[in-house]
Amino acid sequence: MEFTADLSALIDVLDSDDVDGYLIDDDSTDSDQRYVSGFTAPDAYQTLVTPDGGVHLLVSGLEYGRATAESNADSVTRRASYDYQGLAVEHGPHEGKIRMLETFLDDHDVASVSVPRSFPTGTADGLRDRDVSVTVEPESIVEGIRATKTDWEIDQIEATQRANEAAMATAEALIASADVEDGVLVHDGEVLTSERVTEEIEITLLRNGCQLDETIVACGADGADPHDRGSGPLEANELIVIDIFPRDKETGYFGDMTRTFARGDPGEEARRRYEVTERAYEAALEAVEPGVTGAEVHDVACDVIEEAGYETLRSDPSTDTGFIHGTGHGVGLDIHEQPTVSPGGGELEPGHVLTIEPGIYDPAVGGVRIEDLVVVTEGGSENLTEYPVALEPAAR
Amino acid sequence: MEFTADLSALIDVLDSDDVDGYLIDDDSTDSDQRYVSGFTAPDAYQTLVTPDGGVHLLVSGLEYGRATAESNADSVTRRASYDYQGLAVEHGPHEGKIRMLETFLDDHDVASVSVPRSFPTGTADGLRDRDVSVTVEPESIVEGIRATKTDWEIDQIEATQRANEAAMATAEALIASADVEDGVLVHDGEVLTSERVTEEIEITLLRNGCQLDETIVACGADGADPHDRGSGPLEANELIVIDIFPRDKETGYFGDMTRTFARGDPGEEARRRYEVTERAYEAALEAVEPGVTGAEVHDVACDVIEEAGYETLRSDPSTDTGFIHGTGHGVGLDIHEQPTVSPGGGELEPGHVLTIEPGIYDPAVGGVRIEDLVVVTEGGSENLTEYPVALEPAAR
Repeated sequence: MEFTADLSALIDVLDSDDVDGYLIDDDSTDSDQRYVSGFTAPDAYQTLVTPDGGVHLLVSGLEYGRATAESNADSVTRRASYDYQGLAVEHGPHEGKIRMLETFLDDHDVASVSVPRSFPTGTADGLRDRDVSVTVEPESIVEGIRATKTDWEIDQIEATQRANEAAMATAEALIASADVEDGVLVHDGEVLTSERVTEEIEITLLRNGCQLDETIVACGADGADPHDRGSGPLEANELIVIDIFPRDKETGYFGDMTRTFARGDPGEEARRRYEVTERAYEAALEAVEPGVTGAEVHDVACDVIEEAGYETLRSDPSTDTGFIHGTGHGVGLDIHEQPTVSPGGGELEPGHVLTIEPGIYDPAVGGVRIEDLVVVTEGGSENLTEYPVALEPAAR
Repeated sequence: MEFTADLSALIDVLDSDDVDGYLIDDDSTDSDQRYVSGFTAPDAYQTLVTPDGGVHLLVSGLEYGRATAESNADSVTRRASYDYQGLAVEHGPHEGKIRMLETFLDDHDVASVSVPRSFPTGTADGLRDRDVSVTVEPESIVEGIRATKTDWEIDQIEATQRANEAAMATAEALIASADVEDGVLVHDGEVLTSERVTEEIEITLLRNGCQLDETIVACGADGADPHDRGSGPLEANELIVIDIFPRDKETGYFGDMTRTFARGDPGEEARRRYEVTERAYEAALEAVEPGVTGAEVHDVACDVIEEAGYETLRSDPSTDTGFIHGTGHGVGLDIHEQPTVSPGGGELEPGHVLTIEPGIYDPAVGGVRIEDLVVVTEGGSENLTEYPVALEPAAR
C-alpha cells in the first residue's frame, strides 16, 4: 500500500485506556485491518498495534512473502513460528489458534488488548479464558480515523469514480440506442434486459481495473425497492435506476454513483418525482460543508421532498413509499462507512468522502434516485463525480 | 434460495445446551447466515433460530421487500418496528442496535443465545450488559452442517466449475496461441501479461454469471508464492500457475481449479516437479473416500512429494520451498470451508466437496500446482472437474 495510516488517535486511546495493544482478527472483508496494516488476505490473519506505534502481523505461510513485501507492518510473523499446525492437531484448530495468539501477544509484552466491535467473540472469550484481558473499543476509533481521507486516498476514490463513469456511459448508451418494440427495449435484435446491461457495466469496470459484487439496473416497480438489483426486460416509458459501486482491485477504494433514466415518456408524475429528487440532491449537495452535521444535510433533502408532498422516514417512520433511506454515507475502503448522512449523523469534516443520494419510491410509479460522490473541503465540498444528470438517456 | 437448510443438528445443540436461540449478526460476507436464512444483504442483518426450528430475520427497511420475497425465514421484521432510528439517535448507533436486539429477542421469548465464533464481540458484550446470556457455540455446528452438500448444492458447485472451465480454456488458448518474442509471450502484437490474461478470465466468468474477487495468473518466481496473484509479462520457458475460484452470482456457490502451463521448455527440473505434482494429485484423488480422514489424504500427497526428494511442511515445518500448504479444503458458499485436507483434517463423508491441490514451489524454478474439485460419494469420489491436465497449453 502506498499509504501509511496515521494511527496516533488509536495510540492515544491505548494510552488513556492503559491497554497493551489493539488486536484485529479478521480477513479481507475487514477494511479496518487493511487500513491499519496495509495488507489484505483472503483467509483470517491478525494485526496487533502496540502503544509504541508498532504494527505487527501474524499470517499463514502462504501469505508470508506477500505480507513482507506489501504490508506497512513493522514485523510479520508466520503461524509456523508458533507451530500452529502442531497446536491445531493437539488442541483443535480453534484452541490451537487461541494458544498461538497468546504466545504472539506475549512476545510483544501484551497482556491486555482493546478490540473492534466486530472482533470474533470466539477469539475474545478464548483469550479471556487464557487470562488475556479483552475489552471492546467503544468509539470505533479506526473507523473514525478512516472517515478522514488523505489526498492520496481521495485520488484513489476519484480514480474509481472515473471507472464508474465509463461504466455508466456504457449503460446509458445501450439504453439510449435501443429500439422500442412492443413497449420493450431491444438492442442488436435482442431484448435489452437488466442482466445484459449489468454485464456490460461490469465488463467495462473489469477493463478499468475494478471488481464488483453487485450492480443495480432496476426498471419500473423493481426500482421502487432500493436494494432490488433488477431483472428482466427494460421497458419503455418506465423509470430505470442504475446504481454502480465498483471497487478498485489494487487500492480497494470504492466509487458510487446512481442515475435514473427513462426511454419514451414515463408520465407526468414520474417526471415530477425526478425533478423533486434532483432539487433535493442539489440542495443537499449545496449544504455539505465542514461543521454541518450529516443529520442536517439529510434534513435539507427531507425538506425538499416533504414540501413537494412526498413522505419521508422523518415524516412517517413506517412509510414504505417516498424517501425511504438516508441521504448518504461515507465511501472509502468500504462502500458504507463513516460519516453517515442520515438521522444521528455527526459533524462533517474536511477530507470526509460521502454520497448524496436522495430518492423517491413507489411501486406504482417506480423509483428515482440521483447520487454523486463528494469530498468535504475547507471551503465546502468538491464533487468527485463528473457525470451529467438527465432523465433522458444519451449516447456519451 | 431454492434450498432450505436442514438445521436439525443445530436444534439438537440448542436443546442439549438449554439455550433459547442461536443468533447470527453479520452481513453478506457470512455464509453461515446466508445458509441458515436463505438470504444475503450487503449491510449487517440478524438471524435468530429458535428451538422450534423457526428462522427469524431482522433487516433494514431497504432489505425488507427482498427478504420477505427471497428468504427462507419464518418471519421477517424490519428495524423500524423497533424504532431503530430513534434508538440510534437517543443512545448512539451501537447501543441503539443492542436495545433493538434485546427487544427482538424478547419478542421471541429468548433470554439466552448461542452464537458462532465469528459473532461480533461488541454485540456479545453489549447483550451481556443487558443480561442476555451469550455463549459461543464451540463445535461450529453450522459450518459442520454446511460441509455435507445436498444434491442441489452439488449441482450448483458443478455449474460454477463449468464456468471456471470456460475461463480456464480462455486463458489456456491465449497462452497457447501467443507468439514468443525475445523470450516473452506476445498476443495480437501486445505483450501478454498476467493482468491481460486475468482480465479475459474474469470477463469469461462474468459472461457465465459469476463474480470473483481474485484470480491468480503467476509466472516464474511469482508462481512460487502460492498466494501471489502474478503481474507483468508472461515469459516463455517458465511455469505459469493459473488458479481460478469464481462464485456464482445468484447461488453464491464457488468453483475452484488450478492448472500449470509452460510455453517452450521450462527445463528438466520444472518438468520433473510437474510430473511429481501430478502423481501426488492422482494419488490423493484416489485416496478420497468416506471414512478416510483429510489428514490421511494429505499424507498420501506428502508421501509422493517427499519420496521424490522435495520438502513438505510435514518433513520440515519451517520450509518455504517444496509443498508448503495443505492438500485441499472444502468448497461451497465459502471458497475455504470444511472439511480440511491437511494435518488435523477429520473423516470425509459422502456429500463433502473438496479440492485436491498439491504443489511444489521454489523461486529458483517457479511453482507447480494442479487442482481439481471433487465430491465424496458412498463409493469413493466423483471429480466435478472436466478439464485436462497438461503442462503444454492447447487451444481448446
